[in-house]
Amino acid sequence: MNGPDKLRRGSITGQWKQLGLVGVPVSKGQKKDGTEKGPASLRDGGLVERLTDIGCDVKDYGDADFGEVNEDQCYDNVKNPRSVAQGTLKTADMVEQALRTEGHCLAIGGDHSMAIGTIMGHARVNPDMAVLWIDAHADINTPLTSDSGNIHGMPLSFLAKELDQYVPHMPGGWEDIQACISVEQIAWIGLRDVDPGERKIIEKYDMNAFSMQEVDRYGIREVLEKAIKAVDPDGDKPIHVSFDVDAMDPAHTPSTGTPVSGGLSVREMSYIAEEVADTGRLAMVDVAEVNPNLGSKQDVDNTVKSAIDIAARFFGNRRQGLCPPDYDIPVV
Amino acid sequence: MNGPDKLRRGSITGQWKQLGLVGVPVSKGQKKDGTEKGPASLRDGGLVERLTDIGCDVKDYGDADFGEVNEDQCYDNVKNPRSVAQGTLKTADMVEQALRTEGHCLAIGGDHSMAIGTIMGHARVNPDMAVLWIDAHADINTPLTSDSGNIHGMPLSFLAKELDQYVPHMPGGWEDIQACISVEQIAWIGLRDVDPGERKIIEKYDMNAFSMQEVDRYGIREVLEKAIKAVDPDGDKPIHVSFDVDAMDPAHTPSTGTPVSGGLSVREMSYIAEEVADTGRLAMVDVAEVNPNLGSKQDVDNTVKSAIDIAARFFGNRRQGLCPPDYDIPVV
Amino acid sequence: MNGPDKLRRGSITGQWKQLGLVGVPVSKGQKKDGTEKGPASLRDGGLVERLTDIGCDVKDYGDADFGEVNEDQCYDNVKNPRSVAQGTLKTADMVEQALRTEGHCLAIGGDHSMAIGTIMGHARVNPDMAVLWIDAHADINTPLTSDSGNIHGMPLSFLAKELDQYVPHMPGGWEDIQACISVEQIAWIGLRDVDPGERKIIEKYDMNAFSMQEVDRYGIREVLEKAIKAVDPDGDKPIHVSFDVDAMDPAHTPSTGTPVSGGLSVREMSYIAEEVADTGRLAMVDVAEVNPNLGSKQDVDNTVKSAIDIAARFFGNRRQGLCPPDYDIPVV
Ligand SMILES: [Mn+2]
Ligand SMILES: [Mn+2]
Ligand SMILES: [Mn+2]
Ligand SMILES: [Mn+2]
Ligand SMILES: [Mn+2]
Ligand SMILES: [Mn+2]
Repeated sequence: MNGPDKLRRGSITGQWKQLGLVGVPVSKGQKKDGTEKGPASLRDGGLVERLTDIGCDVKDYGDADFGEVNEDQCYDNVKNPRSVAQGTLKTADMVEQALRTEGHCLAIGGDHSMAIGTIMGHARVNPDMAVLWIDAHADINTPLTSDSGNIHGMPLSFLAKELDQYVPHMPGGWEDIQACISVEQIAWIGLRDVDPGERKIIEKYDMNAFSMQEVDRYGIREVLEKAIKAVDPDGDKPIHVSFDVDAMDPAHTPSTGTPVSGGLSVREMSYIAEEVADTGRLAMVDVAEVNPNLGSKQDVDNTVKSAIDIAARFFGNRRQGLCPPDYDIPVV
Repeated sequence: MNGPDKLRRGSITGQWKQLGLVGVPVSKGQKKDGTEKGPASLRDGGLVERLTDIGCDVKDYGDADFGEVNEDQCYDNVKNPRSVAQGTLKTADMVEQALRTEGHCLAIGGDHSMAIGTIMGHARVNPDMAVLWIDAHADINTPLTSDSGNIHGMPLSFLAKELDQYVPHMPGGWEDIQACISVEQIAWIGLRDVDPGERKIIEKYDMNAFSMQEVDRYGIREVLEKAIKAVDPDGDKPIHVSFDVDAMDPAHTPSTGTPVSGGLSVREMSYIAEEVADTGRLAMVDVAEVNPNLGSKQDVDNTVKSAIDIAARFFGNRRQGLCPPDYDIPVV
Repeated sequence: MNGPDKLRRGSITGQWKQLGLVGVPVSKGQKKDGTEKGPASLRDGGLVERLTDIGCDVKDYGDADFGEVNEDQCYDNVKNPRSVAQGTLKTADMVEQALRTEGHCLAIGGDHSMAIGTIMGHARVNPDMAVLWIDAHADINTPLTSDSGNIHGMPLSFLAKELDQYVPHMPGGWEDIQACISVEQIAWIGLRDVDPGERKIIEKYDMNAFSMQEVDRYGIREVLEKAIKAVDPDGDKPIHVSFDVDAMDPAHTPSTGTPVSGGLSVREMSYIAEEVADTGRLAMVDVAEVNPNLGSKQDVDNTVKSAIDIAARFFGNRRQGLCPPDYDIPVV
């Protein structure tokens, strides 16, 4: 990009003038070390500069403190329950503060258990939010349906009120984590690896699940329209996007813990981001599951670049170009 | 995939409960060694386990015996005619037996000359079958239109009754191989390297050829609907899918003898497989042209993985997830 | 491809029977050495043979002489203005001659500043031409809006009459380069990196800009139809395609100076070429920005192959296959 001036948003100028950035360095929601370095890899990759270049006034709130928990035994098969709960509560507080102060928030993880905290914090401000969960996985296993015991595969089971009967009441901070949204507020895009218990929950509650099969059948435009319509039928809800980078094809985001072939292309993910931005109702975005420990340096660089590119599109960057509203073509 | 139980098909449970597996280790239909190891590479890659996991009861009939033929001179320019004929007849017998006993069959090659035998065998059971030939190539050269003399580029010319006048009557077993389907029973998807004689045959017989140009124009959904409608207008025919892995883009299936750029994506091929499975009429699938001698180890692993993924989708695996019919969400 | 005869176009036989080839070895329109070898890399890669195989009668006019200019200081921030102007004038003369003599022309670059000369030359023959500019970039910066000063990002500002007021009158040959088309004669496809001044020009003149966002929204078929309709509403204009290989995704054309992720696929670009060929009105094609100095040998080979494949499709090659009009299927 070259240009006579800093880029600013065109017709949507100032919409996200103020944007809070919150790091969520959690990796205990799954087994692979590295996602705790996700926030640093995105900051080092130039995230804040990219957002500033397109006209955002970014305030960085730093990272939520996940600390260290001694003696964090499994609860049944759930791994690291206290560690995740403790950081989740801090994440929720930071997100709430960022949203109340800046109006908009970008949370960078961290494994996808991060979203328990971001959605909890967001729900204190916008309890009626619409959630777009963009992921290869449904992340709605309960502790009892999950084989792996990894909390990053369960966040939606803790967040959805209707599933309370299926979720054990765990100790170590979970007393303070309460389901805060309804299954009707959730729509998935990008699914292609869904577990049997998850499938059953989707069917039982008639949830809004758009797998890659639907993307292939209807195209990304129609799927996105259907998804938004499903969770925000009147077009008046604040939107929370929870973006797991494994939603994208491993060709674009290889450095992630549970890649699945046949994902969204850079173009489709850009399209989603641009269209959601255009609603004017985007309140918050999570970027989850960047793991700089996985793959080659090139893989990590590609993953970080893809994640930053997409984040920038959610907050105003467009492939059609942007022009400051007061710009005049220089005359000879 | 994790889950509390083995996956089984949901609404289509038991449809392919019994599935016969036939290996067709032929490589003399073309010039590159390696496709004779295709069946072993797919079995070693976990094909049977994958099918079993999604609820199939697989009976492995082993490999057709292609033996050794001494003195297999060219017939005109046709290479290895006796070797191919001999194995073709054995393949046909095994396929017929598998279909009669198990009801459904998966044949794993082997170069695409394998399909002379699989369609011959299938035609003894379902002479009215609809054939979806998914390939970068039309494979309908006659021995006289082919420059290369490789039989894997000719199978449909031996199988289509209308082309009998163009096909020399060769010795060495070909006396027992008779055209058994009509040009109207065939539809191609994925074409992008079609020879002049093939083009002429397509036009002369007004055959159902869907090239990548049509996929780009109409999208995979509409092309697949048109293709199925063309060969099965009333929706009552048993379907035979002859899947050459070179139909897919070389990015996904690099270890194949005649790769051509611009192929079907993993997603489009998954879509084809899921939709054909959903017809409830799929009787048989060929998987042809996996060649583990070509490319790097990574290339071979990717090719085998893609082929197994697609085979599993033809026989019930779905991106939306699967749930056993008797499954209940565990309650606390 | 095999076949009993040289391939020739089917229903469009002879349309480009005569085709002039002009090399434009310019690299001073940008900063990276290598594009001056673009014409040689395409010829060495078999371009002429490929065109001949599909029935074209190619006359190679050789390369425009870009010579050496001593003391080519910047004009304001515009780099190498005299070198580019000098070669541009020679390019225009050669293109004019090729078009008048052969009826159709393929120009191979060279950086995209080449198109100042090709469109100038073409405009002497067909002043009413419709221009399809297929590119990741809009290439319509003026010398005053450009940060880089690279002329390859400015060609359309020199060519469009409406922009004359914004373009300084430079010395060293630029006196003889005059804007020769209108903004209404131009449509872009593939944009995804558009500068602020460019965006402003696009909006001010309501130009026909189709970015990748539109390709993702409408699909390549609809975008191409809209683009052609915009510049050639009655279907009676000669078409000039200016194809920057960076329009394609870097996965296909990595050896280019300013790659941008999320580009056109081989399939979409093939579709564009086939459809434009089918209009029967294609007069000229530029192939710009192949840089054999960039990337690995594999990258260069892939880039050259992609460029040649696409050039061949513009001049008659089709994924459905081609058959000489007088071809008969050989009978036994
Ligand atoms: Mn996730
Ligand atoms: Mn995931
Ligand atoms: Mn084949
Ligand atoms: Mn093939
Ligand atoms: Mn360009
Ligand atoms: Mn460009």
